[in-house]
Amino acid sequence: MAIDQTKLPSEVVVLDIFTVEDLVDAIKRLAIRGAPALGVAGALGAAMAVRDGSDRDLVALRSARPTAVNLAWGVDHALAKRPEGAFAVLAAALDLLESDAARNRALGERGADWLAQQVTGPLAVQTHCNAGALACVEWGTALGVVRSLHERKLLRHVYVDETRPLLQGARLTTWELQGMGVDHTLVVDSAGPTVLARGLAHAVVVGADRITANGDVVNKIGTFPLALAAARAGVPFLVAAPESTIDPALSSGADVDIEVRDGREILGDLPDTRTLNLAFDVTPADLVTAIVTEDRLVRPANGERPA
Amino acid sequence: MAIDQTKLPSEVVVLDIFTVEDLVDAIKRLAIRGAPALGVAGALGAAMAVRDGSDRDLVALRSARPTAVNLAWGVDHALAKRPEGAFAVLAAALDLLESDAARNRALGERGADWLAQQVTGPLAVQTHCNAGALACVEWGTALGVVRSLHERKLLRHVYVDETRPLLQGARLTTWELQGMGVDHTLVVDSAGPTVLARGLAHAVVVGADRITANGDVVNKIGTFPLALAAARAGVPFLVAAPESTIDPALSSGADVDIEVRDGREILGDLPDTRTLNLAFDVTPADLVTAIVTEDRLVRPANGERPA
Repeated sequence: MAIDQTKLPSEVVVLDIFTVEDLVDAIKRLAIRGAPALGVAGALGAAMAVRDGSDRDLVALRSARPTAVNLAWGVDHALAKRPEGAFAVLAAALDLLESDAARNRALGERGADWLAQQVTGPLAVQTHCNAGALACVEWGTALGVVRSLHERKLLRHVYVDETRPLLQGARLTTWELQGMGVDHTLVVDSAGPTVLARGLAHAVVVGADRITANGDVVNKIGTFPLALAAARAGVPFLVAAPESTIDPALSSGADVDIEVRDGREILGDLPDTRTLNLAFDVTPADLVTAIVTEDRLVRPANGERPA
Repeated sequence: MAIDQTKLPSEVVVLDIFTVEDLVDAIKRLAIRGAPALGVAGALGAAMAVRDGSDRDLVALRSARPTAVNLAWGVDHALAKRPEGAFAVLAAALDLLESDAARNRALGERGADWLAQQVTGPLAVQTHCNAGALACVEWGTALGVVRSLHERKLLRHVYVDETRPLLQGARLTTWELQGMGVDHTLVVDSAGPTVLARGLAHAVVVGADRITANGDVVNKIGTFPLALAAARAGVPFLVAAPESTIDPALSSGADVDIEVRDGREILGDLPDTRTLNLAFDVTPADLVTAIVTEDRLVRPANGERPA
């Protein structure tokens, strides 16, 4: 059971998913999206595939979205219990589902602690895409930090990038912030750097789809320009992600397979034109002030490595 | 007579404008847009206002869009002939109209000369918004440089930012490049910096709406992130604009009144949300490798001042 994120905010549609095929379809069309949610979906999907004895389903599921590490990680995490039988795989998946909120709450608190040290007084932050409860099981990663700041009355405002082409910021993040009662302002993606240059936001807080061993951060396309602008404005650039997002097998962002999606997502009803619809970009480690996970804080811009 | 740029590329609608009121409306809704075109429109509108003896029309016209300097410049340029009568004002406006193409051709050639010195072999460039023939009377500023490179067979490819919220890149620039027979690829605005980081484009070429005395460049929102990315990638950031875009009266970009437009342009049919719909951003002089005009080349990043 998952909320179809393509229908928000106009409709809240709950998807009941009983087959791996339907799950893969929901992941590909971004009805289910967000790194932590993909991890849990991968684990639950693995449990379904093991139940059905389908190795083919496992391969399709693991590769439904190539860039986010959490999906394959969730599959593998549950599958590790396969020698103990299908029930053990399901138990591992359900454990991941239940512990997701606790992990996100822990990293949200750690991020809020750190930001409160960097900036005095109620602060305004800028975020990109949606790294909220919808991207997780609940609570959120980047929006988990926002939620923790809000609970402590340390938050003044959130600037939300609309996040083209699928508008996860305009559709999902504004919807979540409204639910939390957090003041927010929507801007086009290309205005984000100006929000920072004008001193309207005191920090950038984003999630991540994969973090390489050196601290390069792969996240939704449009993250890198915010990091460039944050560095120029001298404001912290904070990445909030669970440990499972860190991929020690890849040495840098240059090794990550960046998903290129269908150009119709950009073109809409405009005439057909060649496109390069990159779903993610790479923010180099030297621009990443800090990464917070459920376990620790790492400062890549200071030369610290997550793995 | 002007092409309604809000209808492109699906329809080519020619507007016949006989009153200053209709002209101001066309400028406000961006049916007529682009710095050089606004200069000529301002001059022709001034001739109409003088014909009608309406000082009120002159005030409305001069302030229809606050950020672009060329509109008020065009009004004032034609009005300077008012002591010689209405016919002299019209003659000055028509002279501006006729000389626009020659000015743009001259700056396009100068920009192409300079880029050919910076990069060897056929090059790929990135552009933002529309600074082509549609933004001028003909030929174009940034696309004038592209056109000159293309004529010399020095151009390999153009990356076009879609340019939210009104998609001048996706609607107008792609349409012009297709007409010129130039290979091009459309990306979302936030992918522009990644195109540069990956080495896909060897230079950024944009127009300008106002250039201050120190070399800060005010242009369509989304220009600043490209300049940040170009500096990091070590590729030239070239601004192509007529001399009339340089405003010696303003010492830096901080003095420019940046137009904030209606949030419905961003929201479309999404639920009502607070927005900050900045129409322009400021690229600081230290990120501007060169400015080419019809008369000269200025290198603000090397400390040269346009005024």
